[in-house]
Amino acid sequence: MAEHRFTFGLWTVGNPGRDPFGGPTRAEVDPVDSVHKLAELGAWGVSLHDDDLIPIGSSQAEKDKIVARFKDALEETGLGVGMATTNLFGHPAFKDGAFTSNDRGVRRAAIGKAARFIDTAAELNAEVYVFWGGREGTEVGVAKDPRDALERYREAINVLSQYVVDQGYNLRFAMEPKPNEPRGDIFLPTVGHALHFIETLDRPEMVGVNPEFAHETMAGLSFHHAIGHALWADKLFHIDLNSQRIGRYDQDFRFGAEDLKESFLLVRLLERAGYSGPLHFDAHSYRNENAAGVWDFAAGCMATYRALAEKAAYFDSLPDVQEALLGASQPELGESSAGGDDAATLKGEAEWANLDQLAERGYYNEKLDQILVEVLLGVR
Amino acid sequence: MAEHRFTFGLWTVGNPGRDPFGGPTRAEVDPVDSVHKLAELGAWGVSLHDDDLIPIGSSQAEKDKIVARFKDALEETGLGVGMATTNLFGHPAFKDGAFTSNDRGVRRAAIGKAARFIDTAAELNAEVYVFWGGREGTEVGVAKDPRDALERYREAINVLSQYVVDQGYNLRFAMEPKPNEPRGDIFLPTVGHALHFIETLDRPEMVGVNPEFAHETMAGLSFHHAIGHALWADKLFHIDLNSQRIGRYDQDFRFGAEDLKESFLLVRLLERAGYSGPLHFDAHSYRNENAAGVWDFAAGCMATYRALAEKAAYFDSLPDVQEALLGASQPELGESSAGGDDAATLKGEAEWANLDQLAERGYYNEKLDQILVEVLLGVR
Amino acid sequence: MAEHRFTFGLWTVGNPGRDPFGGPTRAEVDPVDSVHKLAELGAWGVSLHDDDLIPIGSSQAEKDKIVARFKDALEETGLGVGMATTNLFGHPAFKDGAFTSNDRGVRRAAIGKAARFIDTAAELNAEVYVFWGGREGTEVGVAKDPRDALERYREAINVLSQYVVDQGYNLRFAMEPKPNEPRGDIFLPTVGHALHFIETLDRPEMVGVNPEFAHETMAGLSFHHAIGHALWADKLFHIDLNSQRIGRYDQDFRFGAEDLKESFLLVRLLERAGYSGPLHFDAHSYRNENAAGVWDFAAGCMATYRALAEKAAYFDSLPDVQEALLGASQPELGESSAGGDDAATLKGEAEWANLDQLAERGYYNEKLDQILVEVLLGVR
Amino acid sequence: MAEHRFTFGLWTVGNPGRDPFGGPTRAEVDPVDSVHKLAELGAWGVSLHDDDLIPIGSSQAEKDKIVARFKDALEETGLGVGMATTNLFGHPAFKDGAFTSNDRGVRRAAIGKAARFIDTAAELNAEVYVFWGGREGTEVGVAKDPRDALERYREAINVLSQYVVDQGYNLRFAMEPKPNEPRGDIFLPTVGHALHFIETLDRPEMVGVNPEFAHETMAGLSFHHAIGHALWADKLFHIDLNSQRIGRYDQDFRFGAEDLKESFLLVRLLERAGYSGPLHFDAHSYRNENAAGVWDFAAGCMATYRALAEKAAYFDSLPDVQEALLGASQPELGESSAGGDDAATLKGEAEWANLDQLAERGYYNEKLDQILVEVLLGVR
Repeated sequence: MAEHRFTFGLWTVGNPGRDPFGGPTRAEVDPVDSVHKLAELGAWGVSLHDDDLIPIGSSQAEKDKIVARFKDALEETGLGVGMATTNLFGHPAFKDGAFTSNDRGVRRAAIGKAARFIDTAAELNAEVYVFWGGREGTEVGVAKDPRDALERYREAINVLSQYVVDQGYNLRFAMEPKPNEPRGDIFLPTVGHALHFIETLDRPEMVGVNPEFAHETMAGLSFHHAIGHALWADKLFHIDLNSQRIGRYDQDFRFGAEDLKESFLLVRLLERAGYSGPLHFDAHSYRNENAAGVWDFAAGCMATYRALAEKAAYFDSLPDVQEALLGASQPELGESSAGGDDAATLKGEAEWANLDQLAERGYYNEKLDQILVEVLLGVR
Repeated sequence: MAEHRFTFGLWTVGNPGRDPFGGPTRAEVDPVDSVHKLAELGAWGVSLHDDDLIPIGSSQAEKDKIVARFKDALEETGLGVGMATTNLFGHPAFKDGAFTSNDRGVRRAAIGKAARFIDTAAELNAEVYVFWGGREGTEVGVAKDPRDALERYREAINVLSQYVVDQGYNLRFAMEPKPNEPRGDIFLPTVGHALHFIETLDRPEMVGVNPEFAHETMAGLSFHHAIGHALWADKLFHIDLNSQRIGRYDQDFRFGAEDLKESFLLVRLLERAGYSGPLHFDAHSYRNENAAGVWDFAAGCMATYRALAEKAAYFDSLPDVQEALLGASQPELGESSAGGDDAATLKGEAEWANLDQLAERGYYNEKLDQILVEVLLGVR
Repeated sequence: MAEHRFTFGLWTVGNPGRDPFGGPTRAEVDPVDSVHKLAELGAWGVSLHDDDLIPIGSSQAEKDKIVARFKDALEETGLGVGMATTNLFGHPAFKDGAFTSNDRGVRRAAIGKAARFIDTAAELNAEVYVFWGGREGTEVGVAKDPRDALERYREAINVLSQYVVDQGYNLRFAMEPKPNEPRGDIFLPTVGHALHFIETLDRPEMVGVNPEFAHETMAGLSFHHAIGHALWADKLFHIDLNSQRIGRYDQDFRFGAEDLKESFLLVRLLERAGYSGPLHFDAHSYRNENAAGVWDFAAGCMATYRALAEKAAYFDSLPDVQEALLGASQPELGESSAGGDDAATLKGEAEWANLDQLAERGYYNEKLDQILVEVLLGVR
Repeated sequence: MAEHRFTFGLWTVGNPGRDPFGGPTRAEVDPVDSVHKLAELGAWGVSLHDDDLIPIGSSQAEKDKIVARFKDALEETGLGVGMATTNLFGHPAFKDGAFTSNDRGVRRAAIGKAARFIDTAAELNAEVYVFWGGREGTEVGVAKDPRDALERYREAINVLSQYVVDQGYNLRFAMEPKPNEPRGDIFLPTVGHALHFIETLDRPEMVGVNPEFAHETMAGLSFHHAIGHALWADKLFHIDLNSQRIGRYDQDFRFGAEDLKESFLLVRLLERAGYSGPLHFDAHSYRNENAAGVWDFAAGCMATYRALAEKAAYFDSLPDVQEALLGASQPELGESSAGGDDAATLKGEAEWANLDQLAERGYYNEKLDQILVEVLLGVR
């Protein structure tokens, strides 16, 4: 098993515990302290928004000093930058959207803000530049024609991808979908929408997706299936790991804290597919924790991922599992259905009339899933 | 306003009221009777699954007779066929999937079954051939690699689109997404996933989507946004209208019975976009109705669509609305953000530093939405 | 129709637009200014948390001055106080709960904080004192035995109801349920749980419920049914009106902005039941609004309630409706089933064997609901 | 650990795999065969609806013969009857409700049908008689005043409890809540509503609840909390175990197939509370299984429960867990908050002003939950 490249956002371990009903419960953390602490815990790297590192309104001189100090910390610890991204949601100017604000001035400012931090991202050797359009949406549907919004979204990504090419940066983009919150309905709500959107861009080859476990789960969609779709499309450029209960506010719990089976299926798929990008924990400690709890949280995320990766390998090594997978005809799904035959041939085949006979077999799903549960529980 | 081409599935007005906890509450309806009754009520046409018209296991002679009698009814009434589709979910052979069953024999039988009814669809001059993969999914995630499933799905559509070309049929395909039910998680769960999938096909140009109001709503996604995305992609080949509460079993209620505001936004968008395809009601009468209630249901679907279309035109005609839309800068979203400037220029612009000033304005969303509510309620 | 007593929380029109992803978009509002503005708009009164009026840490002298100035504003405008309540969620001390914090010191402080503001509530002649236990819950189930938590909750309400009696205040309590947010799972998640909890108290007669439209809706429950249950139990002491989409973060949208049909059913029920308590809008303006939008929001809440109340009266006046209700046997549900017969008699009756005959009738539900939709749309 | 009394409904292992989109995939099972097979697998007993055993329309002679044969099988195998219940949902007569149908004849027939099978339940020595009101609800809210519906529901249970007393049967009732499906909204949607309803009955002491894991989960509520509430009220008379994803159709999956953590919390609570009633699996095999898969399913339910019970005991035996629970002050929640002090005293205490100090501590929730995850995974 290759070493896992675990990363944490500066905003995750630095999350002060503010929520819609209460103020912070923990002090702000100096990004340089987070870098050192994460290195101690065995993380591979960090990720960041522009505003996580450089306060809005900093002068060029202040910014240079902050970035230099941050780079020193990275060098000292050997940590890398998995991804960088623009905060296009925190400032009240973006209250109606950033790339899709109805106000053209805001849209231009948003593109400019992104371009600025793309420069820094390149300087920090970030692997991926992420676009999460948390404010790109509506509560009042009639206030935006969704076709216009998508057109503006597309324009912004095109302009910025051209900028990366013009500057000669070695940087790929990743779109991060989310169905709702903080907007009532967000454009590009799921991995599927983002994958389609990418196909409409000027440079589809340089843009992939950054799916987040919590985001697909909010809409009740299978994250395991979403990642399967993204891998099938060869577009999994980055991934956000955490946990979440379906149909609730964005919880961003510790990886593995909810839905261990889906987490297992996800890890097994990533391992089997040879995904080698950053494994990014976009989560935070429960609000009732103080500073000490934050590091319990961070260690827990990595420990659970590693435990599930080991279980995935063990699961696939079991003869019972191989037998049950065969019973389920799982490998047979990898074979061509038509095998070169055309539909006219299949139309005439005996099988089509043989439905009753084809209906008789079982698919070993209870046995297979129960073995999985027992492996997960460590009792088999 | 162009005349609306309302259609109903044979299985909708023919729905006998069976559900997971109880048997039928209404008698089966002869498809020919449905055609006549729908013509009386003012529908434009019908749609159908193979098995709705032709019982599984019919001989060729029986089938020919059934189809001829059905064509006679269509001719007599002047009704058209909006779409045709294959029932790949009812027979127990498809319990593990049809195009993505783990059993290759089932997959071949499924392709064959579809090809057979494509012939009939062509004979009936159906406009669109729909693929709803209700059984293409899992409850037990480990039993199918989602990448294999998507690959098989793609293969099946490719084989069948080749068949249409080979036969010289004038028929377009439309993929219909759904997140879950009857499977735990279905492949192609949303309009976004289907739109992306289409881009991977051999003949993307002949395949569009058939979004269903209830299906996107089950996952809590905005149907209005979904249709906006499909129109933006020029892929709205067909549409399924009904209503549904979020996060529940598939309800298929009468159009407009739930969420009048989203229904209004949808109708307004379809009308403004000049959508001219069939307006297909894929819904059924409440189970506590007898045969009489079925026709109340069908008439209600059309009446509410017409009322909303009139309201949409009226809404856009109001000076207050135009003023509020301007206050919201709604038309400004139609303008290019960059206007030919590159990101390097935008990066340096005054605006990026002007976030505080850009934050001051409001977006008239309360006023605009309240006007909409009052127009909807008919009090303005 | 009796005049409606509309109230707004100070925190609702004073909401500055902060959310989990961004800071405030509007300035704080002086409570006295809110009182004056609400009086102008035609509200009957206001409601408030202790901290809305009196900043935490105010001295007794400061507090007295603030309260006196507020009372002057009420007197000047003639506005009443619909309800008062304690903020037991904002301060980080309550991060693990207030009455059910694992820390006994926090629990004692919470009871003390409530008692303090009960004094002020009595001074302001508040009709109802509300308990919303937003922090009474868990993300980590194993950290609290739910039986202990309910026992502590009960103890706190008992101690405080004794206090009201001891002080001779004329004040009733109302429990406000919510399923989740800001905690993963909240104790007393629904109206049903709160109604049962009340029955276990020392003084059940002085405690009722304060159901909120958004809270039941978050869990996908019918608010109309919840209010029916509360009225049936004679426990509807107060009500929080707003709107919300199912299965999402707590949205607190303008009343009527979502689900007009459920809003109509609610208003019709309140009007028919003769509910005479405050009609409290616990909602806030969309975050993309500035100060002007706040008052559009407030006016819209009241306008929509009034419009729905008129529609409810009109609906019930229509002969078509009366006929459809009879067709549905709606009034027959008001008659005793047994009519004095015992089960032994019913067991032997012909009816039990007559199920097939009883199954034949329809219930006019399509017709009835379509009439309702058309009345709602103002086209009938 | 006392031996677990596992039971299965005849309709669970006998489930033929029908769903709204497809017919049965498995043959019907003879109840007597199920009894024998369940005995072999180590179950304690069975449960049943009237119609599971005795087809509607059977003559008295047929019924007597069927019941005698069934009793023989029970005697032979030593199996008990955990609960019995009336099928008031399958026959189309109940399409508008049973105890709350708008048709008084249907309501009388429903009471009669229940009384009949109460006789059989007593003859079979069933411990509990369950009422699941699956059809007691609405899609069209205006068709039933919810207050009337609750009044009729109450009347039916009162009449039937009087019947049990009159006949001298030793039988307790249990109400089973569910939020929706097969009706749009069901009365008594949650455990809380059922607990309150019971308090309004003529004989509250003889009526408890039968909560079902899947039902609370459909509404996104914590089942662990629901059971805690029921135990706190001393009303957990029976329990339905299975699994389910939030916000979907009623899935009734194998116990433990979804949400292992919530399942663990549930089992730990039941074991610690000394719950000794039947542990009833109200679930069924995936539809893509044939007859063999059914018994894999049944064995899996019991195996997972046993594994979780062992893990719960092990978890509580760990010194790390005890330390973390202390760190979380978990035991402190068992202590009285007031300790005899009144609110006037608490109001004046130093603590209330000490909020800032009380806010500093953490609650060890990350540590505690991560230990739990590691115990669940068997890696600690």
